[in-house]
Amino acid sequence: MAQPVDARTNGSLHEAIRGDAYDPGCPTRVVLDRVGDKWTVLVIGALADGPQRFTTLRQSVGGVTAKVLTQTLRAIERDGLVTRTVHAEVPPRVEYALTPLGHSLLEPVDALRRWAEEHLPEILAARATHETAALVTA
Amino acid sequence: MAQPVDARTNGSLHEAIRGDAYDPGCPTRVVLDRVGDKWTVLVIGALADGPQRFTTLRQSVGGVTAKVLTQTLRAIERDGLVTRTVHAEVPPRVEYALTPLGHSLLEPVDALRRWAEEHLPEILAARATHETAALVTA
Repeated sequence: MAQPVDARTNGSLHEAIRGDAYDPGCPTRVVLDRVGDKWTVLVIGALADGPQRFTTLRQSVGGVTAKVLTQTLRAIERDGLVTRTVHAEVPPRVEYALTPLGHSLLEPVDALRRWAEEHLPEILAARATHETAALVTA
Repeated sequence: MAQPVDARTNGSLHEAIRGDAYDPGCPTRVVLDRVGDKWTVLVIGALADGPQRFTTLRQSVGGVTAKVLTQTLRAIERDGLVTRTVHAEVPPRVEYALTPLGHSLLEPVDALRRWAEEHLPEILAARATHETAALVTA
């Protein structure tokens, strides 16, 4: 039986079986930086219901500059999470859509977003307590 | 029935019901930045099996500088995700442990980490294809 090819060897990257986030040399860390990024989380979630044009996507995400949204879309397109399709119309219509890989990311990023939303009051309370304690011991 | 208090109002922050990550003014975004951070994901996961001292935690996470680990621990302690306990020994033993809130974060951050590990080959393949396409059209 063939041995799994490590993602970090000089063998074909396509044959890598899986990464290890606890290995400092493993590219999983770079991927983790990308998929845990706030804008990635929000853009992937905003595309859950179907393809969107840049302008509507920017409105859906909210509070994102055109520059940052462009950078985020380029990065996640490069990583195979979204497609950018130019429809031959006048003016050309450009749409962004989740790929099957992007769809598979929906569940974990939505879970992370929901956790942040649900536990916000506890985190704000912890911060307030922490600041009060810092004042008392100062 | 009392109305939910918005996290951004001047009312008590402790009474906020939940956040909305798609609202640019909501502090959920700051929380999302913190909990999606690669080092937070790895530290929370490394503390899953019980309390750890700084040195062993640094070994468990792997490839993290003392400075970045210190900053990460301070931030997640402030947010109520971990506790820092100084045991009265000579020399004093300092241990970090997950709080119940930190435990509740384990599932979403582990899901994100596992997704990154499992889909690493597909992402690396997408990047390779993207670079080849860029060369062809250059």
